[in-house]
Amino acid sequence: MSDSVTAPSAARRYALGVEYDGTAYAGWQRLAARGSRDDRSVQGALEAALSFVAGHPVDVVCAGRTDAGVHAECQVVHFDSAAERSARGWVLGATTRLPPDISVRWCVPVSADFHARFSARARRYRYRILNRPIRPALGRHYLTWERRPLDAGAMHRAAQALVGEHDFSAFRTVHCQAPHARRELQAIEVRRTGEVVEIEVQANAFLHHMVRNIVGSLLPIGRGERPESWMGELLAGRDRTVAGPTAPATGLVFLGPRYPREWQLPAEVSL
Amino acid sequence: MSDSVTAPSAARRYALGVEYDGTAYAGWQRLAARGSRDDRSVQGALEAALSFVAGHPVDVVCAGRTDAGVHAECQVVHFDSAAERSARGWVLGATTRLPPDISVRWCVPVSADFHARFSARARRYRYRILNRPIRPALGRHYLTWERRPLDAGAMHRAAQALVGEHDFSAFRTVHCQAPHARRELQAIEVRRTGEVVEIEVQANAFLHHMVRNIVGSLLPIGRGERPESWMGELLAGRDRTVAGPTAPATGLVFLGPRYPREWQLPAEVSL
Repeated sequence: MSDSVTAPSAARRYALGVEYDGTAYAGWQRLAARGSRDDRSVQGALEAALSFVAGHPVDVVCAGRTDAGVHAECQVVHFDSAAERSARGWVLGATTRLPPDISVRWCVPVSADFHARFSARARRYRYRILNRPIRPALGRHYLTWERRPLDAGAMHRAAQALVGEHDFSAFRTVHCQAPHARRELQAIEVRRTGEVVEIEVQANAFLHHMVRNIVGSLLPIGRGERPESWMGELLAGRDRTVAGPTAPATGLVFLGPRYPREWQLPAEVSL
Repeated sequence: MSDSVTAPSAARRYALGVEYDGTAYAGWQRLAARGSRDDRSVQGALEAALSFVAGHPVDVVCAGRTDAGVHAECQVVHFDSAAERSARGWVLGATTRLPPDISVRWCVPVSADFHARFSARARRYRYRILNRPIRPALGRHYLTWERRPLDAGAMHRAAQALVGEHDFSAFRTVHCQAPHARRELQAIEVRRTGEVVEIEVQANAFLHHMVRNIVGSLLPIGRGERPESWMGELLAGRDRTVAGPTAPATGLVFLGPRYPREWQLPAEVSL
């Protein structure tokens, strides 16, 4: 053994808050093998930037994978590195290496048993619908467009049937890989501000396409094509094939996960 | 004379409300001669779409020209055409031919003496600043970024010195072609909502770069580098060279002009 080999310092675990505009990406998840160039996924772009700052390959684990075109206000990831960098060094270094549609909001060292996905107790999403006769030009990447008038009050009342712990099979894509469909939907609110109808939803975790499928079934209720009771019937039926179509990705923002206070993460991701 | 030549029907004048995302454009104003292809200006794109719908070349006159990267929530234009089209036909036809970053909100027939620019009594602009340490990823085309903390209250108080009829030479670019610099600034408000500082300003008309130069001088006041009294001093001095730098185009939205009620335009552009 060579004398020049120094004992590696112990790796530290870090949590990172990440904001991104998903418009240009094929989604969160890395598409190519680690180390090969991947500009099409948010994970690939983030790992490339962190690997540059660390000086070694970095893998990240996220709180919630997002689909193509879906944005994040505060995605949370964790990663391990033995590189000596301050929290500020990780934030500024990574942001400098990232494209303009991804930025690192904060970085905090965490204990080795923190896990961005498994430690999260809740996730929040927001869905925005521009409800007017003419398609949006301004902010069109952050809005879904519905030309027919929506009754936001009816949508809100209908959505309350989803609150609680249920089997959400009716709102789960056939591609969903989760072992079971039970989730606890903690809150869902539908409100109108001018021409925009906004849906905000929190659950302990979400199935694949769950938010977009819920919105897709609230839309016919908002248009008056289905009664308010339809939402509860769909939930009870557990049949994806009778629920509304998946609403478009544009308009969906992952607001972020929530962790117990003990992890001492920034207030925006703490319960 | 041929019998097949029918008397041309009288041209009608129309007013049009137009929304656009200025990110991809070199500004409002047409760059090439009429009829030649111009994808780089909003005016060029709009005239091409309206000309297609009309079946003859259409020229538009706007309420307020915007610079490269500046957006509009409701720009107003007028144009003349003898083509038999309903208001709905103009809206849907033009929007179908327009790129996704421009849409026509409404169309109304107006009397021949309506003029989008000269009939307007007021114009409103909004400027949004994201005030946090890290650059924006989400919505970055609609925000200017300021990393140092801003005192929105101080900016608001300072801005009140501009209200009234004044010579705004201090806030006018050297390229401004207006014959004089007197304008009536009717209202200016600066307010903070979370990390966003928003400036909304209304005047009878604006000089070239006037909003961005006002914002550029409010920023050092917000950062505490200049006293609140500075705004009034700059105005009185009428010297562009001592005022703050021109704030970036990103973040600026032309909310639209305002016309006397007699023109019977939609409420959003009526006084």
